[in-house]
Amino acid sequence: MTIRVGLCGTGTVGCGCIDIIQKHHDEFQARYGIDLELTRICSREAEAAESRGLGHLFSSDFHDVINADDVDVVVELFGGTGIAKDVIMGALQNGKHVVTANKAIMASVGEEIASYAHEHGLEIGFGASVGGGIPIIGPLKHSLVANDISSIIGIVNGTTNYMLTRMEAGLSYDEALKEAQEAGFAEADPTADVDGFDAAAKIAILAAIAFNVKITIDQVHTEGIRRLSALDLATAHDMGYAVKLLAITERGNEGVVARVHPAMIPLDHQLASVNGVYNAIYVTGDFVGETMFFGEGAGSGPAASAVMGDVIELARRIEAGAPAGSGYCVPDDCPVVPISTLEMKYYLRFRVADRPGVLAKMATVFSENGVSLQSVQQMGNKQREDVNLVFITHSANEGNINAAIEEILSLGIVTGGEPSVIRVVD
Amino acid sequence: MTIRVGLCGTGTVGCGCIDIIQKHHDEFQARYGIDLELTRICSREAEAAESRGLGHLFSSDFHDVINADDVDVVVELFGGTGIAKDVIMGALQNGKHVVTANKAIMASVGEEIASYAHEHGLEIGFGASVGGGIPIIGPLKHSLVANDISSIIGIVNGTTNYMLTRMEAGLSYDEALKEAQEAGFAEADPTADVDGFDAAAKIAILAAIAFNVKITIDQVHTEGIRRLSALDLATAHDMGYAVKLLAITERGNEGVVARVHPAMIPLDHQLASVNGVYNAIYVTGDFVGETMFFGEGAGSGPAASAVMGDVIELARRIEAGAPAGSGYCVPDDCPVVPISTLEMKYYLRFRVADRPGVLAKMATVFSENGVSLQSVQQMGNKQREDVNLVFITHSANEGNINAAIEEILSLGIVTGGEPSVIRVVD
Repeated sequence: MTIRVGLCGTGTVGCGCIDIIQKHHDEFQARYGIDLELTRICSREAEAAESRGLGHLFSSDFHDVINADDVDVVVELFGGTGIAKDVIMGALQNGKHVVTANKAIMASVGEEIASYAHEHGLEIGFGASVGGGIPIIGPLKHSLVANDISSIIGIVNGTTNYMLTRMEAGLSYDEALKEAQEAGFAEADPTADVDGFDAAAKIAILAAIAFNVKITIDQVHTEGIRRLSALDLATAHDMGYAVKLLAITERGNEGVVARVHPAMIPLDHQLASVNGVYNAIYVTGDFVGETMFFGEGAGSGPAASAVMGDVIELARRIEAGAPAGSGYCVPDDCPVVPISTLEMKYYLRFRVADRPGVLAKMATVFSENGVSLQSVQQMGNKQREDVNLVFITHSANEGNINAAIEEILSLGIVTGGEPSVIRVVD
Repeated sequence: MTIRVGLCGTGTVGCGCIDIIQKHHDEFQARYGIDLELTRICSREAEAAESRGLGHLFSSDFHDVINADDVDVVVELFGGTGIAKDVIMGALQNGKHVVTANKAIMASVGEEIASYAHEHGLEIGFGASVGGGIPIIGPLKHSLVANDISSIIGIVNGTTNYMLTRMEAGLSYDEALKEAQEAGFAEADPTADVDGFDAAAKIAILAAIAFNVKITIDQVHTEGIRRLSALDLATAHDMGYAVKLLAITERGNEGVVARVHPAMIPLDHQLASVNGVYNAIYVTGDFVGETMFFGEGAGSGPAASAVMGDVIELARRIEAGAPAGSGYCVPDDCPVVPISTLEMKYYLRFRVADRPGVLAKMATVFSENGVSLQSVQQMGNKQREDVNLVFITHSANEGNINAAIEEILSLGIVTGGEPSVIRVVD
């Protein structure tokens, strides 16, 4: 059976998709009876298509792809929330299936797109939107479907994980960012990565699938890594923890919480040894227990692997005569609740004046705000007249923590401004 | 849509399946429109069915399940290669879909069963046959399908991994085995685990899917862990390696090789930190790069999660009107070749007399047999008059290694019998 693919976008992922089709076409035909034919390519520049001998398929107008009679599946790789949505919705409205790697769109209007596709007997594949090539969307929709998932903890942003790995080796935040930019792992404007927005989109998508709820990126509590220092990473390490930017979603009694923030995890946890640009996603279900998916979270090959996996899966379902089994399911009526409903342990590092009575004053403030302390550690500094005080709290309410911080800052003993705050995930 | 399930086997996994159906029935109905109904239960004892209020479904004759008009899917959990095959083939012949956790059958006559099912428009699900609850069969068949897989390296036997973890902590082989038996991780007769046969069945199944070839358990080169000692694990650790029982399959120019044997892997490899009864499977593909799947490889909940994942997946496909998209594909015409076609690095530990010239004699033998040495380490022993000599070779042919060992054993300097032999996977 011939399946005709219209490709929108010829960046690294789009070129990876062309490579897969050209390299593995005959294998797909022999194994599955699927004849994948690339019939249209849209991009700003014709160069990528031309250099692969496919200039005759090129158009710079995406309408030539989504309106074409000779396209069964539109692959949307423009990215962003601009014309990409026009491509996706336009293709569906024209009766074409869609495969996309677009996390921004799936994390904002994904439910709208998926239900439109479902109502019209069409598929929307988005396996590449989270974790690059790591199979995670598929397993959540299929292999793990017999479970009630209780939590997902992910390292889903390679840029920040690379930077934290380098900061653990002693680099400052600025040095780590510069190195990541030079290595091509970080953009000139690193905001989406370092402020956690990329991870927030991904955890919103995972939460929607795992918990079968409607959730969008703006419901994800999001903190980035800008305020972390190499000193915090070293201190955490001495205490037996690694610091990672974690994307977490949990389903509790009150509803679903999704959050992205730096967190300390024990060094013997599987996630602690996920270093560099690698990603990993840790899933806990009521029957499967704990399971983890690890791999390259970005890059041409991995993302193209996920996109083309979706295309072939779709092709095989079309061949079998049942295209609309897209894994769509009626969302549960479950609320998304704010992070303030959770109690967590906190690491707090203040730089304070090296004077008698400072620790006692701070401990009193914590106590009066209902925050119980698990440990306190003072780290002197021979070059300076102040010291670092590191507190690890017992599980505490975020409101109480913030009230305690505010009161401590007003005591006139803090020399270093806002404290470093890292949540502890045990 | 109602899907009627006939269950054969009420051991821990069967009971887990009953628990999932009872606990999650309403969720499956609400989310996917699937009304899973347990209509028949077969086992030797009625107790498990009765204690769950299902005594009226019980029969001790499996024909009452596979011949029943009110069964759409037969779940085979008897295990072994005896009547289990009669259950599976009988069910298929009666036009029923089958889901099984039976690695012994899938690793021996899996191709026969899968092609029979495919020809008759039926499904055979076997996601639980490898890795317990870890989604690996599904991702290989679906998410990763756009890749040429080059290798799979798995820790797929929890019993031996638990024992090796304990031996790394200093226990002897016998102590570790005893502890594993007392904890319920090892059988009274531990042969299937410690001699590698369980892992061999699993890697045969993975190789068949990943490389799309016909391969059975008897084509897997299989060595167990009986000859490993705590000393070898400690020595390997000092050299920067963990020792694991690895199940490996690779596709090279000459064909597919599948093998199970103890192996040294670098401590910073993701597989090195997989400890205790956990399993992990490391997959390398031409586009996805390296990806790993980690989780509980055995136990009631995880295995039941995989079995019921297959059942629901099947139910959703039946509902969509396309049951026969079982992931069956025409096997490639690719030979399975013996391990002797591979060159590998070896760790060899000999106990030899502490006499001048011994090392020189042994080095000469290696050299004359075409085995180049990467390092030699002597470990004295104050209580004894002999010493341990540990050699790490460069990549060498197995025939040459064996010839060198035989010649060394004939020199009259070896006091400890056969050497410890561990392959090195870098």
